[in-house]
Amino acid sequence: MTSCSMCTKWEDEPGLQIAELEQCRVMLNRDQFFPGYCFVFTKEHVTELFHLDPEVRNSVMAEVSRVAEALYTAFAPAKINYELLGNMVPHMHWHLVPRFTTDPLWPRPIWSEAHDPVELTSAEYAGRVALIRKTLEAL
Amino acid sequence: MTSCSMCTKWEDEPGLQIAELEQCRVMLNRDQFFPGYCFVFTKEHVTELFHLDPEVRNSVMAEVSRVAEALYTAFAPAKINYELLGNMVPHMHWHLVPRFTTDPLWPRPIWSEAHDPVELTSAEYAGRVALIRKTLEAL
Repeated sequence: MTSCSMCTKWEDEPGLQIAELEQCRVMLNRDQFFPGYCFVFTKEHVTELFHLDPEVRNSVMAEVSRVAEALYTAFAPAKINYELLGNMVPHMHWHLVPRFTTDPLWPRPIWSEAHDPVELTSAEYAGRVALIRKTLEAL
Repeated sequence: MTSCSMCTKWEDEPGLQIAELEQCRVMLNRDQFFPGYCFVFTKEHVTELFHLDPEVRNSVMAEVSRVAEALYTAFAPAKINYELLGNMVPHMHWHLVPRFTTDPLWPRPIWSEAHDPVELTSAEYAGRVALIRKTLEAL
């Protein structure tokens, strides 16, 4: 699967690496239009939830849940949005997006209106990564 | 929670009822622009994944996974999309959406472009509900 961008994402974007868990890797989304937007993606190239053994699925979902709780703790949003799509990149990657009542698209889905990506400085990326990592480790 | 539309959805739309599972209820979405689009929602009024006990979370996700497999079996889509949002109705409800390479929005998210809802006849709703129910029971 050398052509899968999710298989190489961890190595491709070292500045966005948050944590390596048992089943999944956690990375900050480069576009921080929605502050705290992270990806939680499996180390293995798998696609549908129902392809996983129940034990692996439970472990993946425990990790998704734990990262969601860390985002909730760190950013105090109104809601977390959890999305597993994979139409363009089928390798299982969860979009975990803290949503705020002050965000321009609230309460609509994040995809309902196009926006210019919000890029941070290297120091800002590092700070946000460190905050999420520290919160995650403390859970 | 008398003001929660998800708490009363099962009783409100009997023609869309597919199945009552241990943790969740399964209903067809009235708008069938995306054929097979279902909701899987908890019987309890809960919101975030990380609020659930691990055993309950595992059970909810097993049901989400099983419904996704039934949709995949019944409709043969290219991908299933799984979305837990809840910005407007926080009561936990999963959007399970079979996606086809022939659908007008493929491969973009279902929210990326507005569309007029596709309503079926009563007989067509009943047929689609029965197909999904039968496939689910056979898994």
